[in-house]
Amino acid sequence: MAQYYVGVDVGGTTVKMGMFSDTGELLEKWEIPTRLEEQGSYILPDIVDSIEEKRETFPGNIKGIGVGIPGPVSNDGTVLKCANLGWDVFSVSNKLADLTGVGNVKVGNDANVAALGEMWKGGGRGYDSIVMVTLGTGVGGGIILQGKILTGCNGAGGEIGHTKVNPDETAVCGCGNRGCLEQYASATGIVNMAKKNLRGDSCLAGQEITAKAVFDGAKAGDAYCLEVVDAFGKYLGLALSNVAHVVDPEAFVIGGGVSAAGQIILDVVEKYYNENSMFALKNKKFHLAELGNDAGIYGAVRMVLFK
Amino acid sequence: MAQYYVGVDVGGTTVKMGMFSDTGELLEKWEIPTRLEEQGSYILPDIVDSIEEKRETFPGNIKGIGVGIPGPVSNDGTVLKCANLGWDVFSVSNKLADLTGVGNVKVGNDANVAALGEMWKGGGRGYDSIVMVTLGTGVGGGIILQGKILTGCNGAGGEIGHTKVNPDETAVCGCGNRGCLEQYASATGIVNMAKKNLRGDSCLAGQEITAKAVFDGAKAGDAYCLEVVDAFGKYLGLALSNVAHVVDPEAFVIGGGVSAAGQIILDVVEKYYNENSMFALKNKKFHLAELGNDAGIYGAVRMVLFK
Repeated sequence: MAQYYVGVDVGGTTVKMGMFSDTGELLEKWEIPTRLEEQGSYILPDIVDSIEEKRETFPGNIKGIGVGIPGPVSNDGTVLKCANLGWDVFSVSNKLADLTGVGNVKVGNDANVAALGEMWKGGGRGYDSIVMVTLGTGVGGGIILQGKILTGCNGAGGEIGHTKVNPDETAVCGCGNRGCLEQYASATGIVNMAKKNLRGDSCLAGQEITAKAVFDGAKAGDAYCLEVVDAFGKYLGLALSNVAHVVDPEAFVIGGGVSAAGQIILDVVEKYYNENSMFALKNKKFHLAELGNDAGIYGAVRMVLFK
Repeated sequence: MAQYYVGVDVGGTTVKMGMFSDTGELLEKWEIPTRLEEQGSYILPDIVDSIEEKRETFPGNIKGIGVGIPGPVSNDGTVLKCANLGWDVFSVSNKLADLTGVGNVKVGNDANVAALGEMWKGGGRGYDSIVMVTLGTGVGGGIILQGKILTGCNGAGGEIGHTKVNPDETAVCGCGNRGCLEQYASATGIVNMAKKNLRGDSCLAGQEITAKAVFDGAKAGDAYCLEVVDAFGKYLGLALSNVAHVVDPEAFVIGGGVSAAGQIILDVVEKYYNENSMFALKNKKFHLAELGNDAGIYGAVRMVLFK
């Protein structure tokens, strides 16, 4: 009888799901809404119902279910409070195993799980130790060492966005501290930097400033945009260098909406990474993420497949 | 027949060695000189001869040999060049296994191995994930996650001393970069900071400045010494906070000659660690190292015992 594995990526608005073969091929992907009512108590039952419906198309045994969650998760699959979903502390893996009868259930933080997905099938293919950084509204991070997610003892491993890169900063980060990477390398951070000393001779003057506009301007040679991109690279390169001095990965993968700007990001980050790194750590590989929104379902299924 | 395990800590001047029981008890420790002649080619044979001599006192089987080396070592026991010993790239574990006939040989970087020793029998007892920082002439680091050394892909994991804590620094670190933790938290770094703006009203004026004198002055209430200690704590607290955002350990262990100053170090480092850390990472445990120069032989033997 055919054997299937399910990858689940729980977000604040939708739950992305994928049905995979036992060789790791994505057979079908789909989404369901994330129902936040009643402290998110419908979310897991909705996932279970949705898997059950798909079994009409894929009759056979479900051999494993992997899940990414937007919050800290301990090594044993316990969610340590997840404000985004209304969840308090409980074992998501035990609960899902009870609801489905599937014993092989693994749960991880969504940024960590996406990093695992990129290593398996995306920009980190061919490596077994990578650091992934996701540049979106915020800055997320995920670290994979020798094929395994670095979870940390409170599920806070890989929180690269809140490493400090500017001890002189006076503005406050969302986390309550000052000078975090997220204040300069997220989409919001890039826009804030661009607005700060905006000059009339820049192409940004008089238009709505977005991270994309900054990178487009830099590619077109706009001097002010180039300065902002340089500052972005300086902070991100420094942060990734500090991370390398801790975990010494084979490669970095850069993803999230901001990474759509492409090669210009790799170039400026690599430059400042190498400037800040000791000899043994220079010249690491830098790649763009490739799986986009599917990284989560790939990484989720990878946790329960090929263990 | 009795079974023994040998822990070896190779330094640039002496090789420290320990004979352990199969329950992990240190039965005897001793030292031999490190002979650096002929590109360090006598070092391993000298170790083997010394173990052989001790077998008269401890007749039985040697079941494992663990070794710490003052340079980068890959996960498979290959030394990736060790300038301190004159060694080029070769597999120390294979070579020692050949020379002794003992199959169970493990080799690690000395700072990483000392961290493992402190976790097993020293300041990190009771934890399985710690970050150790050694404040000596330089600043070394070792990271243990779930009981295993974080080696990194080029053996450069845990190089905490060269994470950057001061992007504005103009003076150059031994590694060639600027603003590394080592420039402020090593014994040398503390002395440099103390000399920089030395005031005539400080107890340090007119005496030879050492790290110990700075901490002694601070304990006696000398205002200038307190400023220097505060700067030391600011940089070390920031660096350890950045490391925590990457690996999220249970605890920190602070060792090396500087740590002899005691509780004053833990107090100032914890203060700045918490100031820099996001909520989930605040209030980690901080401990002083306890094994001193024996941390290396303990950690070395731990690599081959209770695997």
